[in-house]
Amino acid sequence: MTLPAPGGAGQHTVRRHNLALVLGEVAAAEPVSRAGVAARTGLTRGTVSSLVEELIEAGLLTELAAARGGTGRPASPLQLNRSGPAGLGLEIGVDHVGACVVDLSGTVRALRTAPSAHRDRPPTAGLGAVAELAAAVVAEAGLAVCGAGVALPGLIGAGGRVQHAPNLPGWTDVPVAAELTGLLGIPVVQVANEADLAALAELWFGPSGAAGPGRPGPTFLFVSGGIGVGAGIVLDGRLFRGAGGRAGELGHVVVEPDGRRCRCGGRGCLEQAAGQEALLRATATATVDDLLARPAAAIDPAARALGVALTGAVHLLDVRTVVLGGLYARLGDRLRRSVEAELAARVGPVDVRLSAPGTGGALRAAAASVVRERLNSP
Amino acid sequence: MTLPAPGGAGQHTVRRHNLALVLGEVAAAEPVSRAGVAARTGLTRGTVSSLVEELIEAGLLTELAAARGGTGRPASPLQLNRSGPAGLGLEIGVDHVGACVVDLSGTVRALRTAPSAHRDRPPTAGLGAVAELAAAVVAEAGLAVCGAGVALPGLIGAGGRVQHAPNLPGWTDVPVAAELTGLLGIPVVQVANEADLAALAELWFGPSGAAGPGRPGPTFLFVSGGIGVGAGIVLDGRLFRGAGGRAGELGHVVVEPDGRRCRCGGRGCLEQAAGQEALLRATATATVDDLLARPAAAIDPAARALGVALTGAVHLLDVRTVVLGGLYARLGDRLRRSVEAELAARVGPVDVRLSAPGTGGALRAAAASVVRERLNSP
Repeated sequence: MTLPAPGGAGQHTVRRHNLALVLGEVAAAEPVSRAGVAARTGLTRGTVSSLVEELIEAGLLTELAAARGGTGRPASPLQLNRSGPAGLGLEIGVDHVGACVVDLSGTVRALRTAPSAHRDRPPTAGLGAVAELAAAVVAEAGLAVCGAGVALPGLIGAGGRVQHAPNLPGWTDVPVAAELTGLLGIPVVQVANEADLAALAELWFGPSGAAGPGRPGPTFLFVSGGIGVGAGIVLDGRLFRGAGGRAGELGHVVVEPDGRRCRCGGRGCLEQAAGQEALLRATATATVDDLLARPAAAIDPAARALGVALTGAVHLLDVRTVVLGGLYARLGDRLRRSVEAELAARVGPVDVRLSAPGTGGALRAAAASVVRERLNSP
Repeated sequence: MTLPAPGGAGQHTVRRHNLALVLGEVAAAEPVSRAGVAARTGLTRGTVSSLVEELIEAGLLTELAAARGGTGRPASPLQLNRSGPAGLGLEIGVDHVGACVVDLSGTVRALRTAPSAHRDRPPTAGLGAVAELAAAVVAEAGLAVCGAGVALPGLIGAGGRVQHAPNLPGWTDVPVAAELTGLLGIPVVQVANEADLAALAELWFGPSGAAGPGRPGPTFLFVSGGIGVGAGIVLDGRLFRGAGGRAGELGHVVVEPDGRRCRCGGRGCLEQAAGQEALLRATATATVDDLLARPAAAIDPAARALGVALTGAVHLLDVRTVVLGGLYARLGDRLRRSVEAELAARVGPVDVRLSAPGTGGALRAAAASVVRERLNSP
């Protein structure tokens, strides 16, 4: 029932809002002139110029060389400052770590991954490994990093604590944000589930690899296949995390009521039928590279199990687009077609796509979420 | 970027907002004095008195006899007008119709249900049957009905059209709102899925029967058991309908990958294992009354199938409270305990409750949604 008081606070809020608005318009249309920003925002040219000066001073925008031609003062197009504040993305997986730096435009400026086994080592080992890699990519990128985001295959609680990670024994109630902030000397502003971030990467950057025609639209389910199987659910352009933040645990949807015992305590979970270890078993191979070299025996059981679990997801969530990521993306179009056929038989037409192969999505989104936050709150 | 212009339009909006605010406070605290409303809303007594006069004139509030005592003018407590605009709720089920009238306070003033087979008859037969019942309850209630809401076991599209109802053959693209508005002479303001409305009834009115201690809280999954099996998903006090409005189709989550063919075209759906027809088959009974008289052979398979499907729902949606309704509520605590045990073994502790038995929930919520809308937009 209270409206914002006129005067100081209100004007301050409006100015902050307008700074973000100008930044957003430059990000959407760069390179763009001040006049172009004024036309797109409805702000006066004087207001835009004043806001732009502040954003240039803050290192968020730069002017390109003035474009000559026409009459009057030549227009200097604006763009996001590629040398401005950068975002650091970190990933701690079951058997690897990753780190990357993106600039304000979201472009990856340095990215490294390294094997790092975490199942039988304490969390401090994984945190140390990712911090070491972080130092290397930050040095490589040569940008001033303003914050870090972390991707993890677990359930994240308040304050960037990992509450529980089924495939990372020992990672229970670990204050990842606080620990890494200390190790890195860079504030960790977000810790999030790996599949959720990979889904946001799909939303923000679209499939850049074998993904077929264009982005998956604003509503889709991203399946992250690996040792664990998780899903990031995007509804109308927003991440759906459920009431308690634990939604999307596709890997523990039951696909064989009397199936194998799962690490989660359940039985017949998708992860036991279509996780990395099940696929290695099915193909009698020992490594993912071997599996990818002769995947024949893995495709059908994986597609069938994914089809059963995704049928449930389609009916419960009303999503009609599925993006297969992680190991599933590497298994390629044969798996995609089999999953699509399984879904067609069970639930009707569902658009199944492949994400760009590799683990970069969650990592890039972890870094990009830092600069997006910076652009939203300049 | 535009703020509401000061003056006419803004003040009009504020007054409408304040009318709804006053109504809401009276609904929450009735009977309540004007001074009480002023204290709870932060509005001045003068403003409250002016708003209250308008609401009394519109037939939405009434004054009770003045309470004597104390000094000054005696206070006349306010309450919602039980003789004011009423809501009509209608339900079209697979084998029955229902109609009820609630007054502004949500109290049921008349309610009737009648058997009515719809599977082998065209939609016009069901619409005629429910319109006939509606006329009877409206006459019985003796209130001025301001609108109607309709519950149906199907997928509802824009404009109150039923797009598809798996258990009501022929109900494809039927303009239910328009047809019933014509038949009743009362505007049909909402057509909604039966399970969604039953879930809202649980949220609004709480379990009133064998449901255990109190309301289920703001996040739960309501399972409507019958010939079809549907779910209404309530997250943080709001109905979750998914991007396309079709979320919650629990009945078609796969519980036996190689199970029976389902009417939906799929295979091994929950409905084929735990829907009414499967339970009748399991108990070799012909009617629901026979089933309820000797349910032994039905409980275990139903609990197991529900446990498998609900495990998926818990993992995908992150709900930890399940309310069993419809036929499942009538099967009672033995089913409840079995489902809870099945979930405990598969996913951990989940609070499983029974709704009040009977079909009244969706019907009452369909009627209540009409008066709630009226109170929100006086």
